[in-house]
Amino acid sequence: MRLGRIGYINCYPVYGAIDRNVVAAPGELVTGTPAELNDLLVAGELDVSVISAVEYARHARDLVLLPELAISCDGPVRSVMLLSRRTVGQLDGRTVLLTASSRTSVALLELLCREVWKIRPRFAEARAEASDLDHLAKLPHDAVLVIGDPALLLAARGAYPEVVDLGDAWKRWTGLPFVFAVWAAQRAADPGAVQRAHQALLASRAWGLAHLDDLAAAAARATGIAVPACREYLAGLDYALTYKHLAGLTDFFRRLAADGIVPDGSLQFLHVA
Amino acid sequence: MRLGRIGYINCYPVYGAIDRNVVAAPGELVTGTPAELNDLLVAGELDVSVISAVEYARHARDLVLLPELAISCDGPVRSVMLLSRRTVGQLDGRTVLLTASSRTSVALLELLCREVWKIRPRFAEARAEASDLDHLAKLPHDAVLVIGDPALLLAARGAYPEVVDLGDAWKRWTGLPFVFAVWAAQRAADPGAVQRAHQALLASRAWGLAHLDDLAAAAARATGIAVPACREYLAGLDYALTYKHLAGLTDFFRRLAADGIVPDGSLQFLHVA
Repeated sequence: MRLGRIGYINCYPVYGAIDRNVVAAPGELVTGTPAELNDLLVAGELDVSVISAVEYARHARDLVLLPELAISCDGPVRSVMLLSRRTVGQLDGRTVLLTASSRTSVALLELLCREVWKIRPRFAEARAEASDLDHLAKLPHDAVLVIGDPALLLAARGAYPEVVDLGDAWKRWTGLPFVFAVWAAQRAADPGAVQRAHQALLASRAWGLAHLDDLAAAAARATGIAVPACREYLAGLDYALTYKHLAGLTDFFRRLAADGIVPDGSLQFLHVA
Repeated sequence: MRLGRIGYINCYPVYGAIDRNVVAAPGELVTGTPAELNDLLVAGELDVSVISAVEYARHARDLVLLPELAISCDGPVRSVMLLSRRTVGQLDGRTVLLTASSRTSVALLELLCREVWKIRPRFAEARAEASDLDHLAKLPHDAVLVIGDPALLLAARGAYPEVVDLGDAWKRWTGLPFVFAVWAAQRAADPGAVQRAHQALLASRAWGLAHLDDLAAAAARATGIAVPACREYLAGLDYALTYKHLAGLTDFFRRLAADGIVPDGSLQFLHVA
Protein backbone atom coordinates (compact mmCIF):
# COMPACT_ATOMS: atom_id res chain seq x y z
CA MET A 1 0.00 0.00 0.00
CA ARG A 2 1.04 3.57 -0.65
CA LEU A 3 0.70 6.26 1.99
CA GLY A 4 0.81 9.97 1.12
CA ARG A 5 2.88 12.32 3.25
CA ILE A 6 3.28 16.10 3.12
CA GLY A 7 6.88 17.20 3.62
CA TYR A 8 5.90 20.26 5.67
CA ILE A 9 6.92 20.28 9.30
CA ASN A 10 3.25 20.43 10.33
CA CYS A 11 3.11 16.71 9.50
CA TYR A 12 6.08 15.78 11.67
CA PRO A 13 3.90 14.97 14.70
CA VAL A 14 1.99 12.40 12.64
CA TYR A 15 4.81 10.91 10.55
CA GLY A 16 7.80 11.48 12.83
CA ALA A 17 7.71 8.05 14.48
CA ILE A 18 7.19 6.33 11.12
CA ASP A 19 10.08 8.31 9.64
CA ARG A 20 12.28 7.17 12.54
CA ASN A 21 11.12 3.54 12.41
CA VAL A 22 9.74 3.84 15.92
CA VAL A 23 6.46 2.80 14.32
CA ALA A 24 6.72 0.46 11.34
CA ALA A 25 5.73 2.12 8.05
CA PRO A 26 2.45 0.56 6.90
CA GLY A 27 3.57 0.82 3.27
CA GLU A 28 5.53 2.90 0.81
CA LEU A 29 5.61 6.60 1.70
CA VAL A 30 5.02 9.14 -1.11
CA THR A 31 5.94 12.74 -0.30
CA GLY A 32 4.31 15.62 -2.17
CA THR A 33 2.67 19.02 -1.84
CA PRO A 34 -0.92 18.95 -0.56
CA ALA A 35 -2.20 19.58 -4.11
CA GLU A 36 -0.16 16.73 -5.55
CA LEU A 37 -1.26 14.25 -2.87
CA ASN A 38 -4.91 15.25 -3.30
CA ASP A 39 -4.82 14.44 -6.99
CA LEU A 40 -2.84 11.24 -6.54
CA LEU A 41 -5.23 9.90 -3.90
CA VAL A 42 -8.22 10.67 -6.11
CA ALA A 43 -6.43 9.15 -9.12
CA GLY A 44 -6.00 5.94 -7.14
CA GLU A 45 -2.20 6.10 -6.93
CA LEU A 46 -2.29 6.35 -3.15
CA ASP A 47 -4.31 4.06 -0.88
CA VAL A 48 -4.28 6.38 2.13
CA SER A 49 -3.20 9.99 2.32
CA VAL A 50 -3.57 13.24 4.12
CA ILE A 51 -5.92 15.26 1.87
CA SER A 52 -7.11 18.87 1.83
CA ALA A 53 -10.51 19.16 3.49
CA VAL A 54 -12.10 20.69 0.40
CA GLU A 55 -10.77 17.97 -1.88
CA TYR A 56 -12.19 15.37 0.46
CA ALA A 57 -15.57 17.09 0.09
CA ARG A 58 -15.28 17.11 -3.70
CA HIS A 59 -14.50 13.41 -3.86
CA ALA A 60 -16.30 12.09 -0.78
CA ARG A 61 -18.08 9.41 -2.79
CA ASP A 62 -14.80 7.68 -3.59
CA LEU A 63 -13.15 8.13 -0.20
CA VAL A 64 -13.55 7.15 3.42
CA LEU A 65 -12.35 9.31 6.29
CA LEU A 66 -9.91 7.94 8.83
CA PRO A 67 -11.36 8.60 12.31
CA GLU A 68 -9.66 10.68 14.99
CA LEU A 69 -7.01 12.22 12.75
CA ALA A 70 -6.81 15.67 11.13
CA ILE A 71 -4.76 18.85 10.96
CA SER A 72 -6.75 21.53 12.68
CA CYS A 73 -6.47 24.70 14.67
CA ASP A 74 -8.76 26.42 17.11
CA GLY A 75 -7.60 29.97 16.59
CA PRO A 76 -4.32 30.99 14.94
CA VAL A 77 -2.63 28.35 12.78
CA ARG A 78 0.51 30.38 11.91
CA SER A 79 1.17 28.58 8.64
CA VAL A 80 -1.83 29.61 6.56
CA MET A 81 -1.29 33.30 6.10
CA LEU A 82 -2.52 36.11 3.95
CA LEU A 83 0.44 38.48 3.82
CA SER A 84 -0.57 41.85 2.48
CA ARG A 85 0.69 45.30 1.66
CA ARG A 86 -2.77 46.71 2.47
CA THR A 87 -5.51 46.02 4.98
CA VAL A 88 -7.99 43.40 3.80
CA GLY A 89 -10.61 46.09 3.29
CA GLN A 90 -8.29 47.75 0.77
CA LEU A 91 -7.80 44.56 -1.28
CA ASP A 92 -11.02 45.01 -3.29
CA GLY A 93 -10.05 44.85 -6.97
CA ARG A 94 -6.40 44.24 -6.04
CA THR A 95 -4.24 41.27 -6.94
CA VAL A 96 -3.85 38.41 -4.48
CA LEU A 97 -1.42 35.63 -5.38
CA LEU A 98 -2.62 32.18 -4.32
CA THR A 99 -0.27 29.35 -3.55
CA ALA A 100 -0.61 26.67 -6.22
CA SER A 101 0.02 24.02 -3.56
CA SER A 102 -3.20 24.29 -1.61
CA ARG A 103 -6.92 23.95 -2.17
CA THR A 104 -8.55 24.29 1.23
CA SER A 105 -6.84 27.50 2.22
CA VAL A 106 -7.76 29.02 -1.16
CA ALA A 107 -11.41 28.06 -0.63
CA LEU A 108 -11.29 29.49 2.90
CA LEU A 109 -9.76 32.75 1.69
CA GLU A 110 -12.38 33.11 -1.04
CA LEU A 111 -15.11 32.51 1.51
CA LEU A 112 -13.68 35.10 3.91
CA CYS A 113 -13.37 37.66 1.09
CA ARG A 114 -16.94 37.12 -0.04
CA GLU A 115 -18.78 36.63 3.23
CA VAL A 116 -16.79 38.49 5.87
CA TRP A 117 -14.62 41.16 4.27
CA LYS A 118 -17.00 41.87 1.33
CA ILE A 119 -14.19 42.32 -1.14
CA ARG A 120 -13.51 40.91 -4.58
CA PRO A 121 -9.78 40.73 -5.16
CA ARG A 122 -8.35 39.48 -8.43
CA PHE A 123 -6.74 36.12 -7.79
CA ALA A 124 -3.67 34.75 -9.56
CA GLU A 125 -2.10 31.36 -8.90
CA ALA A 126 1.63 31.33 -8.23
CA ARG A 127 4.33 28.89 -7.19
CA ALA A 128 4.88 29.44 -3.48
CA GLU A 129 7.00 26.66 -2.02
CA ALA A 130 10.07 27.50 0.07
CA SER A 131 12.37 27.51 -2.97
CA ASP A 132 10.05 29.91 -4.80
CA LEU A 133 10.01 32.78 -2.32
CA ASP A 134 12.59 34.99 -4.05
CA HIS A 135 10.77 34.50 -7.33
CA LEU A 136 7.44 35.22 -5.66
CA ALA A 137 8.72 38.52 -4.31
CA LYS A 138 9.31 39.72 -7.88
CA LEU A 139 5.77 39.04 -9.10
CA PRO A 140 3.49 42.07 -8.93
CA HIS A 141 0.88 41.66 -6.20
CA ASP A 142 -0.80 43.35 -3.28
CA ALA A 143 -1.11 40.27 -1.11
CA VAL A 144 -0.18 36.61 -1.16
CA LEU A 145 -1.70 33.49 0.38
CA VAL A 146 0.96 31.03 1.51
CA ILE A 147 0.77 27.79 3.48
CA GLY A 148 3.05 25.42 5.34
CA ASP A 149 6.78 25.94 5.72
CA PRO A 150 6.93 28.73 3.11
CA ALA A 151 4.29 30.62 5.11
CA LEU A 152 6.42 30.41 8.24
CA LEU A 153 9.49 31.53 6.30
CA LEU A 154 7.79 34.36 4.44
CA ALA A 155 6.06 35.68 7.57
CA ALA A 156 9.44 35.65 9.35
CA ARG A 157 10.86 37.98 6.69
CA GLY A 158 8.47 40.69 7.85
CA ALA A 159 8.10 42.09 4.35
CA TYR A 160 4.33 42.62 4.59
CA PRO A 161 2.77 45.04 7.05
CA GLU A 162 -0.56 43.19 7.20
CA VAL A 163 -0.65 39.59 8.35
CA VAL A 164 -3.94 37.69 8.48
CA ASP A 165 -3.90 34.23 10.02
CA LEU A 166 -6.71 32.32 8.30
CA GLY A 167 -7.26 29.97 11.22
CA ASP A 168 -7.75 32.96 13.47
CA ALA A 169 -10.04 34.69 10.96
CA TRP A 170 -12.25 31.60 10.75
CA LYS A 171 -12.40 31.28 14.55
CA ARG A 172 -13.40 34.93 14.91
CA TRP A 173 -16.09 34.49 12.29
CA THR A 174 -17.66 31.18 13.33
CA GLY A 175 -16.32 30.44 16.80
CA LEU A 176 -15.28 27.02 15.54
CA PRO A 177 -12.01 25.19 14.96
CA PHE A 178 -10.88 24.92 11.36
CA VAL A 179 -9.88 21.60 9.83
CA PHE A 180 -7.37 22.06 7.03
CA ALA A 181 -6.71 18.45 6.22
CA VAL A 182 -8.02 15.02 7.02
CA TRP A 183 -6.72 11.54 6.29
CA ALA A 184 -8.69 9.46 3.85
CA ALA A 185 -8.49 6.13 2.10
CA GLN A 186 -9.70 5.12 -1.29
CA ARG A 187 -12.97 3.31 -0.95
CA ALA A 188 -11.55 0.58 -3.18
CA ALA A 189 -8.41 0.07 -1.07
CA ASP A 190 -7.91 -3.13 0.89
CA PRO A 191 -9.74 -2.59 4.23
CA GLY A 192 -7.20 -4.53 6.27
CA ALA A 193 -4.31 -2.51 4.90
CA VAL A 194 -6.21 0.72 5.52
CA GLN A 195 -6.93 -0.32 9.12
CA ARG A 196 -3.26 -1.07 9.66
CA ALA A 197 -2.27 2.29 8.17
CA HIS A 198 -4.77 4.04 10.42
CA GLN A 199 -3.40 2.27 13.50
CA ALA A 200 0.16 3.11 12.49
CA LEU A 201 -0.72 6.78 12.01
CA LEU A 202 -2.42 6.96 15.41
CA ALA A 203 0.51 5.22 17.08
CA SER A 204 2.92 7.53 15.31
CA ARG A 205 0.95 10.58 16.39
CA ALA A 206 0.97 9.39 20.02
CA TRP A 207 4.76 9.14 19.89
CA GLY A 208 5.01 12.46 18.07
CA LEU A 209 2.94 14.43 20.56
CA ALA A 210 5.12 12.98 23.34
CA HIS A 211 8.30 14.03 21.51
CA LEU A 212 7.57 17.54 20.31
CA ASP A 213 11.00 18.74 21.46
CA ASP A 214 12.74 16.26 19.17
CA LEU A 215 10.40 17.13 16.30
CA ALA A 216 10.85 20.87 16.83
CA ALA A 217 14.62 20.41 16.65
CA ALA A 218 14.24 18.50 13.37
CA ALA A 219 11.83 21.14 12.07
CA ALA A 220 14.33 23.88 12.89
CA ARG A 221 17.07 22.03 10.97
CA ALA A 222 14.75 21.55 7.98
CA THR A 223 13.52 25.14 7.78
CA GLY A 224 16.13 27.33 9.45
CA ILE A 225 13.44 28.65 11.80
CA ALA A 226 14.45 28.84 15.46
CA VAL A 227 13.67 25.81 17.65
CA PRO A 228 11.37 27.66 20.11
CA ALA A 229 9.28 29.04 17.22
CA CYS A 230 8.99 25.55 15.72
CA ARG A 231 8.07 24.12 19.13
CA GLU A 232 5.39 26.72 19.64
CA TYR A 233 4.04 26.22 16.12
CA LEU A 234 3.76 22.43 16.42
CA ALA A 235 2.22 22.69 19.88
CA GLY A 236 -0.40 25.10 18.51
CA LEU A 237 -1.64 22.65 15.91
CA ASP A 238 -4.22 20.05 16.71
CA TYR A 239 -4.19 16.56 15.20
CA ALA A 240 -7.47 15.24 16.56
CA LEU A 241 -10.83 14.96 14.84
CA THR A 242 -13.44 15.16 17.59
CA TYR A 243 -17.00 16.49 17.52
CA LYS A 244 -15.81 20.09 17.86
CA HIS A 245 -13.50 19.66 14.87
CA LEU A 246 -16.28 17.96 12.92
CA ALA A 247 -18.55 20.90 13.70
CA GLY A 248 -15.98 23.25 12.14
CA LEU A 249 -15.42 20.95 9.18
CA THR A 250 -19.07 20.48 8.37
CA ASP A 251 -19.81 24.18 8.83
CA PHE A 252 -17.09 24.94 6.27
CA PHE A 253 -18.52 22.35 3.89
CA ARG A 254 -22.04 23.70 4.40
CA ARG A 255 -20.89 27.18 3.35
CA LEU A 256 -18.99 25.86 0.34
CA ALA A 257 -21.94 23.71 -0.74
CA ALA A 258 -24.28 26.71 -0.45
CA ASP A 259 -22.02 28.51 -2.93
CA GLY A 260 -21.91 25.47 -5.22
CA ILE A 261 -18.19 24.94 -4.65
CA VAL A 262 -18.49 21.40 -3.35
CA PRO A 263 -21.42 18.97 -3.59
CA ASP A 264 -23.65 18.71 -0.56
CA GLY A 265 -22.94 15.44 1.19
CA SER A 266 -22.20 13.65 4.41
CA LEU A 267 -19.06 12.36 6.05
CA GLN A 268 -18.21 8.69 5.54
CA PHE A 269 -15.84 7.16 8.03
CA LEU A 270 -13.80 4.04 7.83
CA HIS A 271 -15.50 1.39 9.90
CA VAL A 272 -13.20 0.68 12.81
CA ALA A 273 -13.87 -2.60 14.56
CA MET B 1 4.15 49.55 -18.32
CA ARG B 2 4.82 45.99 -17.25
CA LEU B 3 5.77 43.29 -19.75
CA GLY B 4 5.51 39.57 -18.92
CA ARG B 5 8.33 37.24 -19.83
CA ILE B 6 8.69 33.47 -19.51
CA GLY B 7 12.14 32.43 -18.30
CA TYR B 8 12.26 29.34 -20.55
CA ILE B 9 14.83 29.35 -23.31
CA ASN B 10 12.03 29.15 -25.90
CA CYS B 11 11.49 32.86 -25.27
CA TYR B 12 15.13 33.84 -25.83
CA PRO B 13 14.57 34.61 -29.52
CA VAL B 14 11.89 37.15 -28.59
CA TYR B 15 13.41 38.69 -25.43
CA GLY B 16 17.13 38.16 -26.06
CA ALA B 17 17.77 41.59 -27.59
CA ILE B 18 15.73 43.28 -24.85
CA ASP B 19 17.64 41.34 -22.18
CA ARG B 20 20.92 42.50 -23.75
CA ASN B 21 19.80 46.11 -24.16
CA VAL B 22 20.18 45.82 -27.94
CA VAL B 23 16.54 46.83 -28.05
CA ALA B 24 15.36 49.14 -25.29
CA ALA B 25 12.99 47.47 -22.83
CA PRO B 26 9.53 48.98 -23.31
CA GLY B 27 8.85 48.76 -19.58
CA GLU B 28 9.48 46.70 -16.49
CA LEU B 29 9.99 43.00 -17.22
CA VAL B 30 8.20 40.45 -15.00
CA THR B 31 9.43 36.86 -15.27
CA GLY B 32 7.14 33.95 -14.37
CA THR B 33 5.89 30.55 -15.41
CA PRO B 34 3.28 30.57 -18.19
CA ALA B 35 0.53 29.90 -15.62
CA GLU B 36 1.65 32.80 -13.42
CA LEU B 37 1.87 35.25 -16.31
CA ASN B 38 -1.55 34.22 -17.62
CA ASP B 39 -3.19 35.02 -14.31
CA LEU B 40 -1.25 38.24 -13.79
CA LEU B 41 -2.18 39.56 -17.24
CA VAL B 42 -5.84 38.74 -16.66
CA ALA B 43 -5.65 40.29 -13.17
CA GLY B 44 -4.37 43.50 -14.74
CA GLU B 45 -0.92 43.39 -13.16
CA LEU B 46 0.74 43.14 -16.57
CA ASP B 47 -0.03 45.40 -19.53
CA VAL B 48 1.40 43.10 -22.17
CA SER B 49 2.51 39.50 -21.84
CA VAL B 50 3.03 36.25 -23.57
CA ILE B 51 -0.06 34.20 -22.68
CA SER B 52 -1.09 30.57 -23.18
CA ALA B 53 -3.35 30.24 -26.21
CA VAL B 54 -6.17 28.69 -24.20
CA GLU B 55 -6.07 31.42 -21.56
CA TYR B 56 -6.29 34.02 -24.31
CA ALA B 57 -9.43 32.22 -25.53
CA ARG B 58 -10.92 32.20 -22.03
CA HIS B 59 -10.36 35.91 -21.54
CA ALA B 60 -10.53 37.21 -25.11
CA ARG B 61 -13.08 39.87 -24.14
CA ASP B 62 -10.53 41.64 -21.94
CA LEU B 63 -7.51 41.22 -24.20
CA VAL B 64 -6.22 42.22 -27.60
CA LEU B 65 -3.82 40.08 -29.58
CA LEU B 66 -0.48 41.47 -30.71
CA PRO B 67 -0.14 40.80 -34.47
CA GLU B 68 2.64 38.75 -36.05
CA LEU B 69 3.97 37.23 -32.83
CA ALA B 70 3.43 33.78 -31.29
CA ILE B 71 5.21 30.63 -30.19
CA SER B 72 4.27 27.93 -32.62
CA CYS B 73 5.46 24.76 -34.24
CA ASP B 74 4.59 23.01 -37.46
CA GLY B 75 5.39 19.48 -36.45
CA PRO B 76 7.57 18.49 -33.47
CA VAL B 77 8.03 21.15 -30.79
CA ARG B 78 10.44 19.15 -28.56
CA SER B 79 9.51 20.97 -25.37
CA VAL B 80 5.90 19.90 -24.90
CA MET B 81 6.20 16.23 -24.23
CA LEU B 82 4.17 13.39 -22.88
CA LEU B 83 6.75 11.05 -21.39
CA SER B 84 5.27 7.68 -20.65
CA ARG B 85 6.08 4.24 -19.32
CA ARG B 86 3.37 2.80 -21.63
CA THR B 87 2.11 3.45 -25.13
CA VAL B 88 -0.67 6.04 -25.22
CA GLY B 89 -3.20 3.30 -25.98
CA GLN B 90 -2.30 1.68 -22.66
CA LEU B 91 -2.85 4.87 -20.64
CA ASP B 92 -6.61 4.39 -20.34
CA GLY B 93 -7.44 4.56 -16.62
CA ARG B 94 -3.79 5.20 -15.77
CA THR B 95 -2.32 8.22 -14.01
CA VAL B 96 -0.87 11.08 -16.01
CA LEU B 97 0.84 13.89 -14.10
CA LEU B 98 0.23 17.32 -15.61
CA THR B 99 2.64 20.19 -15.21
CA ALA B 100 1.08 22.85 -13.02
CA SER B 101 2.83 25.51 -15.09
CA SER B 102 0.87 25.22 -18.31
CA ARG B 103 -2.69 25.50 -19.51
CA THR B 104 -2.58 25.14 -23.28
CA SER B 105 -0.56 21.95 -23.37
CA VAL B 106 -2.91 20.42 -20.79
CA ALA B 107 -5.92 21.33 -22.94
CA LEU B 108 -4.18 19.91 -26.02
CA LEU B 109 -3.34 16.67 -24.22
CA GLU B 110 -6.92 16.27 -23.00
CA LEU B 111 -8.18 16.85 -26.53
CA LEU B 112 -5.78 14.28 -27.98
CA CYS B 113 -6.77 11.72 -25.33
CA ARG B 114 -10.46 12.23 -25.98
CA GLU B 115 -10.60 12.69 -29.72
CA VAL B 116 -7.60 10.87 -31.13
CA TRP B 117 -6.38 8.22 -28.70
CA LYS B 118 -9.83 7.48 -27.21
CA ILE B 119 -8.47 7.04 -23.72
CA ARG B 120 -9.47 8.42 -20.35
CA PRO B 121 -6.42 8.67 -18.11
CA ARG B 122 -6.68 9.94 -14.55
CA PHE B 123 -4.99 13.32 -14.40
CA ALA B 124 -3.09 14.72 -11.42
CA GLU B 125 -1.43 18.13 -11.30
CA ALA B 126 2.20 18.22 -10.18
CA ARG B 127 5.03 20.71 -9.88
CA ALA B 128 7.24 20.16 -12.90
CA GLU B 129 9.77 22.95 -13.22
CA ALA B 130 13.46 22.15 -13.65
CA SER B 131 14.10 22.17 -9.90
CA ASP B 132 11.21 19.73 -9.34
CA LEU B 133 12.36 16.88 -11.56
CA ASP B 134 13.87 14.69 -8.83
CA HIS B 135 10.75 15.15 -6.74
CA LEU B 136 8.56 14.39 -9.78
CA ALA B 137 10.37 11.10 -10.38
CA LYS B 138 9.27 9.91 -6.93
CA LEU B 139 5.55 10.54 -7.48
CA PRO B 140 3.64 7.48 -8.66
CA HIS B 141 2.57 7.86 -12.29
CA ASP B 142 2.44 6.17 -15.65
CA ALA B 143 3.12 9.25 -17.73
CA VAL B 144 3.89 12.92 -17.26
CA LEU B 145 3.22 16.03 -19.35
CA VAL B 146 6.07 18.52 -19.13
CA ILE B 147 6.77 21.75 -20.98
CA GLY B 148 9.62 24.16 -21.58
CA ASP B 149 13.11 23.68 -20.19
CA PRO B 150 12.06 20.90 -17.79
CA ALA B 151 10.68 18.97 -20.79
CA LEU B 152 14.01 19.22 -22.58
CA LEU B 153 15.85 18.15 -19.43
CA LEU B 154 13.53 15.29 -18.56
CA ALA B 155 13.44 13.94 -22.12
CA ALA B 156 17.25 14.01 -22.15
CA ARG B 157 17.31 11.70 -19.10
CA GLY B 158 15.78 8.96 -21.26
CA ALA B 159 13.83 7.53 -18.32
CA TYR B 160 10.60 6.97 -20.25
CA PRO B 161 10.38 4.52 -23.15
CA GLU B 162 7.48 6.34 -24.83
CA VAL B 163 7.88 9.94 -25.90
CA VAL B 164 5.01 11.80 -27.54
CA ASP B 165 5.70 15.27 -28.91
CA LEU B 166 2.40 17.12 -28.68
CA GLY B 167 3.22 19.49 -31.54
CA ASP B 168 3.85 16.50 -33.74
CA ALA B 169 0.68 14.73 -32.56
CA TRP B 170 -1.39 17.80 -33.41
CA LYS B 171 0.20 18.11 -36.83
CA ARG B 172 -0.48 14.44 -37.63
CA TRP B 173 -4.08 14.85 -36.54
CA THR B 174 -5.01 18.14 -38.19
CA GLY B 175 -2.23 18.89 -40.67
CA LEU B 176 -1.94 22.33 -39.07
CA PRO B 177 0.67 24.20 -37.06
CA PHE B 178 0.02 24.48 -33.33
CA VAL B 179 0.17 27.82 -31.54
CA PHE B 180 1.11 27.37 -27.89
CA ALA B 181 1.27 30.99 -26.88
CA VAL B 182 0.44 34.42 -28.20
CA TRP B 183 1.21 37.89 -26.97
CA ALA B 184 -1.67 39.97 -25.72
CA ALA B 185 -2.34 43.31 -24.10
CA GLN B 186 -4.98 44.25 -21.63
CA ARG B 187 -7.76 46.03 -23.45
CA ALA B 188 -7.54 48.78 -20.83
CA ALA B 189 -3.79 49.34 -21.27
CA ASP B 190 -2.48 52.55 -22.79
CA PRO B 191 -2.55 52.00 -26.59
CA GLY B 192 0.62 53.97 -27.24
CA ALA B 193 2.58 52.00 -24.68
CA VAL B 194 1.22 48.74 -26.09
CA GLN B 195 2.20 49.76 -29.63
CA ARG B 196 5.72 50.56 -28.42
CA ALA B 197 5.95 47.22 -26.63
CA HIS B 198 4.79 45.44 -29.78
CA GLN B 199 7.39 47.22 -31.88
CA ALA B 200 10.10 46.44 -29.33
CA LEU B 201 9.14 42.75 -29.28
CA LEU B 202 9.19 42.56 -33.10
CA ALA B 203 12.55 44.33 -33.24
CA SER B 204 13.91 42.06 -30.54
CA ARG B 205 12.67 38.97 -32.39
CA ALA B 206 14.34 40.16 -35.61
CA TRP B 207 17.65 40.46 -33.75
CA GLY B 208 17.07 37.14 -32.00
CA LEU B 209 16.41 35.16 -35.16
CA ALA B 210 19.59 36.63 -36.62
CA HIS B 211 21.59 35.62 -33.53
CA LEU B 212 20.44 32.09 -32.80
CA ASP B 213 24.03 30.94 -32.24
CA ASP B 214 24.49 33.45 -29.40
CA LEU B 215 21.11 32.54 -27.94
CA ALA B 216 21.78 28.80 -28.19
CA ALA B 217 25.04 29.30 -26.29
CA ALA B 218 23.19 31.21 -23.56
CA ALA B 219 20.48 28.55 -23.52
CA ALA B 220 23.08 25.82 -23.09
CA ARG B 221 24.62 27.70 -20.15
CA ALA B 222 21.19 28.16 -18.55
CA THR B 223 20.05 24.56 -18.92
CA GLY B 224 23.15 22.39 -19.20
CA ILE B 225 21.84 21.04 -22.51
CA ALA B 226 24.42 20.85 -25.31
CA VAL B 227 24.71 23.88 -27.62
CA PRO B 228 23.82 22.02 -30.84
CA ALA B 229 20.66 20.62 -29.24
CA CYS B 230 19.67 24.12 -28.05
CA ARG B 231 20.40 25.54 -31.50
CA GLU B 232 18.28 22.90 -33.18
CA TYR B 233 15.47 23.39 -30.67
CA LEU B 234 15.32 27.16 -31.08
CA ALA B 235 15.53 26.88 -34.85
CA GLY B 236 12.60 24.44 -34.82
CA LEU B 237 10.28 26.87 -33.10
CA ASP B 238 8.33 29.45 -35.02
CA TYR B 239 7.64 32.93 -33.67
CA ALA B 240 5.34 34.20 -36.41
CA LEU B 241 1.56 34.45 -36.45
CA THR B 242 0.52 34.22 -40.09
CA TYR B 243 -2.66 32.84 -41.65
CA LYS B 244 -1.42 29.28 -41.41
CA HIS B 245 -0.74 29.70 -37.68
CA LEU B 246 -4.12 31.36 -37.23
CA ALA B 247 -5.75 28.40 -38.98
CA GLY B 248 -4.18 26.09 -36.41
CA LEU B 249 -5.05 28.39 -33.52
CA THR B 250 -8.69 28.83 -34.49
CA ASP B 251 -9.09 25.11 -35.23
CA PHE B 252 -7.84 24.38 -31.71
CA PHE B 253 -10.25 26.96 -30.26
CA ARG B 254 -13.12 25.56 -32.34
CA ARG B 255 -12.54 22.10 -30.87
CA LEU B 256 -12.25 23.43 -27.30
CA ALA B 257 -15.39 25.54 -27.70
CA ALA B 258 -17.29 22.51 -29.04
CA ASP B 259 -16.41 20.74 -25.80
CA GLY B 260 -17.42 23.76 -23.72
CA ILE B 261 -13.86 24.34 -22.50
CA VAL B 262 -13.57 27.89 -23.82
CA PRO B 263 -16.31 30.26 -24.95
CA ASP B 264 -16.90 30.50 -28.69
CA GLY B 265 -15.47 33.78 -29.91
CA SER B 266 -13.36 35.60 -32.43
CA LEU B 267 -9.84 36.93 -32.44
CA GLN B 268 -9.36 40.60 -31.62
CA PHE B 269 -6.12 42.17 -32.75
CA LEU B 270 -4.43 45.32 -31.64
CA HIS B 271 -5.02 47.93 -34.29
CA VAL B 272 -1.64 48.68 -35.79
CA ALA B 273 -1.46 51.94 -37.69
